[in-house]
Amino acid sequence: MHITILTFQGFNELDSLIALGVLNRIKKPGWRVTICCPEPEVTSMNGVTVRAQSTLEDATTADAVIVGSGILTRQIVSTPELMGRLSFEPERQLIAAQCSGTLILAKLGLLGNVPACTDLMTKPWVQEAGVEVLNQPFFAHGNVATAGGCLASSYLAGWIIAQTEGLEAASAALHYIAPVGEKDAFVDNALKNIKPYLRR
Amino acid sequence: MHITILTFQGFNELDSLIALGVLNRIKKPGWRVTICCPEPEVTSMNGVTVRAQSTLEDATTADAVIVGSGILTRQIVSTPELMGRLSFEPERQLIAAQCSGTLILAKLGLLGNVPACTDLMTKPWVQEAGVEVLNQPFFAHGNVATAGGCLASSYLAGWIIAQTEGLEAASAALHYIAPVGEKDAFVDNALKNIKPYLRR
Repeated sequence: MHITILTFQGFNELDSLIALGVLNRIKKPGWRVTICCPEPEVTSMNGVTVRAQSTLEDATTADAVIVGSGILTRQIVSTPELMGRLSFEPERQLIAAQCSGTLILAKLGLLGNVPACTDLMTKPWVQEAGVEVLNQPFFAHGNVATAGGCLASSYLAGWIIAQTEGLEAASAALHYIAPVGEKDAFVDNALKNIKPYLRR
Repeated sequence: MHITILTFQGFNELDSLIALGVLNRIKKPGWRVTICCPEPEVTSMNGVTVRAQSTLEDATTADAVIVGSGILTRQIVSTPELMGRLSFEPERQLIAAQCSGTLILAKLGLLGNVPACTDLMTKPWVQEAGVEVLNQPFFAHGNVATAGGCLASSYLAGWIIAQTEGLEAASAALHYIAPVGEKDAFVDNALKNIKPYLRR
């Protein structure tokens, strides 16, 4: 199981790295989570430089893809060279987008006429792309999921684990990252958001 | 205002980067937040390499210091060369520790006989260092704060903003990162954790 987290120049650190931390709670052979970038290194919206662990081309063959968020997403969707490197198949891959990542899925035509979640700033652009935006943190339809608000990236990661490893594994991963003294309440709320959209 | 986030080899991505994201919501001249490392680059517990933005020596003159967490903290506190580079003054600096970062503050003698928060795995080591561990996500006494559980790093960052820029600025920063549809509930809960420990 290879999960790529698409992380572009200007990325939002929380959106890529919370998902990465949650997903890496699964410790089993072959389970691999990578920061996936168009270049060998990318620098975040706040100046943090991280090194790529996989390429955009690797994402096309991954088992799951999370499209991260950032301050340059509108430029990305206007760059045919970059968009042309993004090729995903919801029939074969779990596909998830966080905040402005939803705009990328919308522009790739992967949301169809299904509603989606995104952050409050990206909302008008996703609507302009013809997609209904929900006032909730998480939504999924089949193999495609979207989330809005940085911390909802934990729900996105929880959904991927729940779909592939089961609800108990997702609960354990979310329990680990939750604040001490608030763990049960956090997990309960996360599962409340994820459960309606599970296919098993 | 310079805030350094101490980030060592084997670091927990959430603990360093959630705080960084929240703190960078403050947009004013002179407000600077940096990933602060013992080396030019560090690699996380899950293999993510980030580039340092400041040095451990910069942290000694910073206005605030967050000691991040990771899987190598017990080795760090057993390395006199590394511990000798950590020199903080709670009279002059806000000092905060996240999860296993609390063990570093304990070993530096910065917690005194005040209780602290940490993660469930580090808890016995902090207790062994003579510090009482609380079953809550956040605690502060004067200029020294501790938090336990990755997502409680948002409370730590919120506390630093509240102490320096006021409660309204902290609320706005926390509102931004919260999940869509859960923003008010998240901010209310965060402030409930932070407010009892504010000095103004």
